[in-house]
Amino acid sequence: MPRLDESAKGVFLITVTPFREDGALDLDSTDRVTDFYLENGATGLTVLGVMGEAPKLTADESREYVKRVLARVNGRVPVVVGASSPGFAAMGELAKGVMDLGAAGVMVGPAATVKTDDQAVSYYEMVAETLGPSTPFCVQDHPLAYAGVQLSVPVLTRIFKAIPTAVMLKHEDWPGPGLSKLAALRAASGRGEMRRVSILCGNGGGLFLPEELSRGADGAMTGFSYPEMMRDVVAAHAAGDVERAHDLFDAYLPLARYEQQAALGLAVRKYLLLKRGAIATAAIRKPGPKLSAADVADIDRLIARQERRLQELG
Amino acid sequence: MPRLDESAKGVFLITVTPFREDGALDLDSTDRVTDFYLENGATGLTVLGVMGEAPKLTADESREYVKRVLARVNGRVPVVVGASSPGFAAMGELAKGVMDLGAAGVMVGPAATVKTDDQAVSYYEMVAETLGPSTPFCVQDHPLAYAGVQLSVPVLTRIFKAIPTAVMLKHEDWPGPGLSKLAALRAASGRGEMRRVSILCGNGGGLFLPEELSRGADGAMTGFSYPEMMRDVVAAHAAGDVERAHDLFDAYLPLARYEQQAALGLAVRKYLLLKRGAIATAAIRKPGPKLSAADVADIDRLIARQERRLQELG
Amino acid sequence: MPRLDESAKGVFLITVTPFREDGALDLDSTDRVTDFYLENGATGLTVLGVMGEAPKLTADESREYVKRVLARVNGRVPVVVGASSPGFAAMGELAKGVMDLGAAGVMVGPAATVKTDDQAVSYYEMVAETLGPSTPFCVQDHPLAYAGVQLSVPVLTRIFKAIPTAVMLKHEDWPGPGLSKLAALRAASGRGEMRRVSILCGNGGGLFLPEELSRGADGAMTGFSYPEMMRDVVAAHAAGDVERAHDLFDAYLPLARYEQQAALGLAVRKYLLLKRGAIATAAIRKPGPKLSAADVADIDRLIARQERRLQELG
Amino acid sequence: MPRLDESAKGVFLITVTPFREDGALDLDSTDRVTDFYLENGATGLTVLGVMGEAPKLTADESREYVKRVLARVNGRVPVVVGASSPGFAAMGELAKGVMDLGAAGVMVGPAATVKTDDQAVSYYEMVAETLGPSTPFCVQDHPLAYAGVQLSVPVLTRIFKAIPTAVMLKHEDWPGPGLSKLAALRAASGRGEMRRVSILCGNGGGLFLPEELSRGADGAMTGFSYPEMMRDVVAAHAAGDVERAHDLFDAYLPLARYEQQAALGLAVRKYLLLKRGAIATAAIRKPGPKLSAADVADIDRLIARQERRLQELG
Repeated sequence: MPRLDESAKGVFLITVTPFREDGALDLDSTDRVTDFYLENGATGLTVLGVMGEAPKLTADESREYVKRVLARVNGRVPVVVGASSPGFAAMGELAKGVMDLGAAGVMVGPAATVKTDDQAVSYYEMVAETLGPSTPFCVQDHPLAYAGVQLSVPVLTRIFKAIPTAVMLKHEDWPGPGLSKLAALRAASGRGEMRRVSILCGNGGGLFLPEELSRGADGAMTGFSYPEMMRDVVAAHAAGDVERAHDLFDAYLPLARYEQQAALGLAVRKYLLLKRGAIATAAIRKPGPKLSAADVADIDRLIARQERRLQELG
Repeated sequence: MPRLDESAKGVFLITVTPFREDGALDLDSTDRVTDFYLENGATGLTVLGVMGEAPKLTADESREYVKRVLARVNGRVPVVVGASSPGFAAMGELAKGVMDLGAAGVMVGPAATVKTDDQAVSYYEMVAETLGPSTPFCVQDHPLAYAGVQLSVPVLTRIFKAIPTAVMLKHEDWPGPGLSKLAALRAASGRGEMRRVSILCGNGGGLFLPEELSRGADGAMTGFSYPEMMRDVVAAHAAGDVERAHDLFDAYLPLARYEQQAALGLAVRKYLLLKRGAIATAAIRKPGPKLSAADVADIDRLIARQERRLQELG
Repeated sequence: MPRLDESAKGVFLITVTPFREDGALDLDSTDRVTDFYLENGATGLTVLGVMGEAPKLTADESREYVKRVLARVNGRVPVVVGASSPGFAAMGELAKGVMDLGAAGVMVGPAATVKTDDQAVSYYEMVAETLGPSTPFCVQDHPLAYAGVQLSVPVLTRIFKAIPTAVMLKHEDWPGPGLSKLAALRAASGRGEMRRVSILCGNGGGLFLPEELSRGADGAMTGFSYPEMMRDVVAAHAAGDVERAHDLFDAYLPLARYEQQAALGLAVRKYLLLKRGAIATAAIRKPGPKLSAADVADIDRLIARQERRLQELG
Repeated sequence: MPRLDESAKGVFLITVTPFREDGALDLDSTDRVTDFYLENGATGLTVLGVMGEAPKLTADESREYVKRVLARVNGRVPVVVGASSPGFAAMGELAKGVMDLGAAGVMVGPAATVKTDDQAVSYYEMVAETLGPSTPFCVQDHPLAYAGVQLSVPVLTRIFKAIPTAVMLKHEDWPGPGLSKLAALRAASGRGEMRRVSILCGNGGGLFLPEELSRGADGAMTGFSYPEMMRDVVAAHAAGDVERAHDLFDAYLPLARYEQQAALGLAVRKYLLLKRGAIATAAIRKPGPKLSAADVADIDRLIARQERRLQELG
């Protein structure tokens, strides 16, 4: 079982959790969408995130789902498990459980109570102590999802300097200082103020990927239903063909933007994954959004336009 | 097993969870403090609240602790269990578990995502659906502890009108419209706009008890380490001796105020319960506050002054 | 002087406030950028918004700036003035001043203290009373800029039903229920629950314009430095050529997205307006963002790509 | 005109702004309540705070009111003017105006946008730059009133170390780490990490005054309608009679607690000042609270009880 470390890069897909129409976990679709992600460019998976409907799963279901994903992945790529929790006890229990099952690490966002720099650093020190020395973790920097808590560059520098098991940053400080913060973190590493950790980005849900790569991101961590977009943009960028990276990105941008609507996004994503054959139903557990006929018409139009554009690009 | 219903009144104690110095659950002290609460006036207990350090317990520990409390109480008073959770699945699991063990009901505060009246009502409809028709619950109205979410009088009226299993309000909208809101809710019941439900108060952590009783509260739900204060104030008020109620209240007020400090309060409370012989140690699980020597000197002075004052009152 | 009313439509430009390098108001550039907006499709202007650096102007400067804009516009299009304020007294003073100068109306977002539906409605009733019966206003629905306050569909319905001077909604509830909320508001008008008011959109800063038009928006209110994008998309949509509307929109989308970065956006916008000759400097008053060399390289690349794409479209 | 400096101590009264029943400024009552404050122990005044209904005054009214207070005070005590503002331009204008009139300094709370330590320090650096080198100011640490912004001990240490014109802290971090934070700040001065500045406290609106004095506070800044409480508690404490300080404090505590209700407090305060003959009406400008008959009955009872208690104390 590979452990997550500072060298992680590429495309970590934030997975959906498939359900059947009756609301039960759909484990067949779990296999299928896992394959889909890996076949379309994922170099890692992130499961039980907010977009994975984690809070709607019982503890048993979470375990069953993670076990199934890990079995299907079978060591091909690292799997990171969302372990944010209002309490350290629950965080520790969940983390221990999934690491025993073969996860590569966990991901933890800050508690809503964090208001000052010292509180932020202390919080992550407690996280590290809770997880123990053999569970590497990813710091999730995502104020919109975490009560507006902002992890500043000095705070992140202190965290990555002090905590050896903090090996990765999921950078999604948006709307906010996304790109300049990323640049500042890389500069801090360059000056030796902190280790160079893995930084995977998702500012705006991936809407800044080409620019993030230019600023030193190691790749993307987001859940867009076309993983090949991230794969191909990362590849073109790595090959030095920045214009090609933008061409590809621009082709997907109208649909990617549509999938990033906060309230409706998960329904858009599951609809697209259903259309692409990756899951058997677009069912979302309550409480969850539903697409209107107008939404579906929008999406179908955007798919058609995207396909045309990709054909033009060759 | 008695179920919680709209007739609940008196003093529901918000219990502390005792730990040993090594951090383990202290089940002997759990028995002892349970007896202490009941001997000093509790007509109900509320366990696994924030002041019960609930987020620091594993699922197994929570179950073990609740089981122990229920066994010790042995049906003498109803026990309400805090079940607020970011996800309905976890809420449902916890609630089912504790109701099976003999709890009288659960208590649920609003999710941080609630921003509008309709969202608040919908949230509690989902809570009711999650808990099922045989689990009565208490709506916890406590913006300071629940991301600033305010449950307005129209919202509470709609909730208590629509949801038969919502039988109680823990009213702690403070700093805020505490007393006037309480009066408005009783007036709404008087006009037949909602059922008359049980309202137990804790505005400012009990710092307005005499006035709350005058406005129609059925009693207190708070965790002050001198339950006899609430018992005696409620009794004097019920007997029509309002001045006596104030005399008693005023005698305890300086210490009660000190115990209500947000950051330090739990340490003050456990120190006082230790002094009173109700628990074996004042240990708090991390992360938690510690008393300074100056704090201890403050408290000891306030205890001595309180004892003198109570003696003067007779 | 035309007053703002429910029939407003098209493109209301949120103007920048030009400064000289020494920080003084640049009134020549004010004339120039006003002309630029009108020549490139503005059917209205919105001045002294957040992106207009309103809080950095003294009262005298605000008056001088508004006066200059109004003189230059000279009645050609309606000018709406941002009048949100923590206090009603300041709001009333500013509004009276600008209406006397010839503004068409004002725009007001909710106070940070608004937490419930009734509070939101009361707030706008106070706004209407403060402004008086002859000052029409636009309700600004923009939670990201207004302390997370959400104005729900029932709240907006009540506001527009009760307040005749509330004639317009600036709809920017994003990330959030943007499109579905817009559809619900139009449906409410359709059912006669509220008047049909003008709704100008800016969800994501204009990143959903084609879809907003499909859902019944009367146009856009945003500050993208290429007003012709909004003009042409609106025109194509009005002509029934939805694919053309999307083609145009998609061509501008990569740059529009870049200009919508919360922290850096204003610097991007002023840089672009400077490049386009609409203002003499890109100066921003402190506190304000600065573009890095990498940012400038990004923008220049995006401009070049946009120009190529527009040429391809013809 | 004395300027505010680090030696300020005693009791700075947060003044109410008196209105006539028709809503106009009541300048006669302004004189009267100013005298009342000074006769009852104020060693300084703080005007145009939130409890002074500052946001409900026009700029002209603010100036007129401050001018009147300053004329009446006539140099007997320093007058601090609230100058918090969403924009630096308005802050600078107001501050210049009142300093020219003879104010001793201004008071500024943090902007709602402050989320990290560096942002907090930068904010106050901008404040100092805006105010200029000859306007001393008080840092207002009051998260409940300032969007939850917390100024940590390291932040305050940096501010007071870097900014010579930051000479005072109004400490009201409550509910929160009130007393321990105060102790930590004094310890930081003791270790030479920052100057010893004036710290005036109002945690819980004065509900911790005896303990604050023990921790090193230089006095109180709060608006309780019985300034003699603060005067006498401070005096007893200074004389080394801590029990007497507590006796006095406890006598006033039930009413002080009642006046600290967030929503209703200002109405309670003005009712009490009216009863005491300090103002001619209890009028509050809209939007503002109103006392119910039950509230008035509560207050009258608490006054009678307080008088009895003070008589017993002698």
